Amino acid sequence: MLRIAICAPSRPIVEQDAVRVIALADEFPGLDLHFHPQCFLEQGHFAGSDSARVDALAECANDPQFDAVWFARGGYGAARVAEDAIARMGREADRKTFLGYSDGGMILGGLYANKIGRQVHAPMPTDIRREGGDAAVRRTLGWLAGERGGLEPSLDQHPTVAFNLMTLAMLCGTPLMPGLAGHVVMVEEVAEYHYAIDRLFFHITAHLGAVAGLRLGRVNMVPENDAPFLHDEEAIARHWCARHAIPYLGRADVGHDIDNKIVPFGVAGGAAGK
Amino acid sequence: MLRIAICAPSRPIVEQDAVRVIALADEFPGLDLHFHPQCFLEQGHFAGSDSARVDALAECANDPQFDAVWFARGGYGAARVAEDAIARMGREADRKTFLGYSDGGMILGGLYANKIGRQVHAPMPTDIRREGGDAAVRRTLGWLAGERGGLEPSLDQHPTVAFNLMTLAMLCGTPLMPGLAGHVVMVEEVAEYHYAIDRLFFHITAHLGAVAGLRLGRVNMVPENDAPFLHDEEAIARHWCARHAIPYLGRADVGHDIDNKIVPFGVAGGAAGK
Repeated sequence: MLRIAICAPSRPIVEQDAVRVIALADEFPGLDLHFHPQCFLEQGHFAGSDSARVDALAECANDPQFDAVWFARGGYGAARVAEDAIARMGREADRKTFLGYSDGGMILGGLYANKIGRQVHAPMPTDIRREGGDAAVRRTLGWLAGERGGLEPSLDQHPTVAFNLMTLAMLCGTPLMPGLAGHVVMVEEVAEYHYAIDRLFFHITAHLGAVAGLRLGRVNMVPENDAPFLHDEEAIARHWCARHAIPYLGRADVGHDIDNKIVPFGVAGGAAGK
Repeated sequence: MLRIAICAPSRPIVEQDAVRVIALADEFPGLDLHFHPQCFLEQGHFAGSDSARVDALAECANDPQFDAVWFARGGYGAARVAEDAIARMGREADRKTFLGYSDGGMILGGLYANKIGRQVHAPMPTDIRREGGDAAVRRTLGWLAGERGGLEPSLDQHPTVAFNLMTLAMLCGTPLMPGLAGHVVMVEEVAEYHYAIDRLFFHITAHLGAVAGLRLGRVNMVPENDAPFLHDEEAIARHWCARHAIPYLGRADVGHDIDNKIVPFGVAGGAAGK
């Protein structure tokens, strides 16, 4: 039995969604899901106060009965808890798998930088709210249960990470930023103007000198601006990669959508909680 | 006579606005304004192609007949031209004053990092479009003409810089980022959610370890989100400054508005083009 603790380092979810995810998990008899009550706290924007979110994350990571920690939802907030929670993680955290994406990348990045456990870009419980979101949630559950069909198809022998573009940009140069020399870096974005995407690429490519290459995930729901930007996201990625001599490796099958695939940080392979 | 070249490294302005600014400049008989035709180019989002913007900026900076280079407008685009234009600047640029703010901070930052000329956070020609914007434009013209009433009132013996928060965040860790040890750093923002402001503060404070302190300019037009963030911009600034032991020095009289004051980079004092 693989026991999975779910907490919410950023924004809260509602109990109804947890019930739906637990129902889906019934398809995977090897998995046992525990939603930490902190997931349902609401304090303005956040799933409880900073200290409530730090406590829940550290508690899930340090509890020996769990094999994995799954972030319930992104949406901003992890930056306020990641360093403090990571500082409190002990040896029990080392054998755990941590899963999430979007704002959760702040924690995944910090854990990878600190070599704590195993970090996995993967759909989250909140994806159940998307139309057809069952498929996304099932992908993470399936991967935890040992299925490998949900892995991002371009994964190869290179160590790889996947991040939301804004999240990676904010990580750059901070104590949470992992060394990414030799890595394939996948980035995806949602709901940002093309000019903002260009600006973020200016920033991240200046920080990613030694990477093996960059892959562009999906850039969804780009708002329309008052004038066309003229460069689409692929042209933007190619432009900035070329300026910094970063190999542009093509597209990645990740994004804020139900098709978002699984990217274990580092070299893929092996099973969760092993 | 102080001759001022105006170019647009980011977005274009319209000729009507240039006419209004030239009319205002008549009040200052010691100033002579030259709008470079590139200001009025329109290529989608931008004031002409990347190379047209690089050319105009380098041309204005290198032309011995000019004493100052004033950016017409911000709005994103300078990141795509700053490095190339700065690389082409020769000795003529060293004796010039460069003025602007917002996205123009990309260039001011790069010039300050490279010790080329003198950099000044100051209202731009495009501010003429704001209600009461004459006052803002007049402030820059007045400062160029030798008036000192438009200086940001907290300026003291500390070297100081002022940046748009997003612009500074994007500069951090790039070749355009100046060393800011010992500086007072002023930041202002416009039209960003509180959660985005928090995220940007997480980022910049991790990069500003050795500064003398931070001052918070105005944070205008914060959009309403689906839940209240609970921390306002001053609480955000205090939180992140405290985490990185950066002295929070209070407010600064800068912002995307007609009251935006003048902040010469480095130690204030002395006249333009001297």
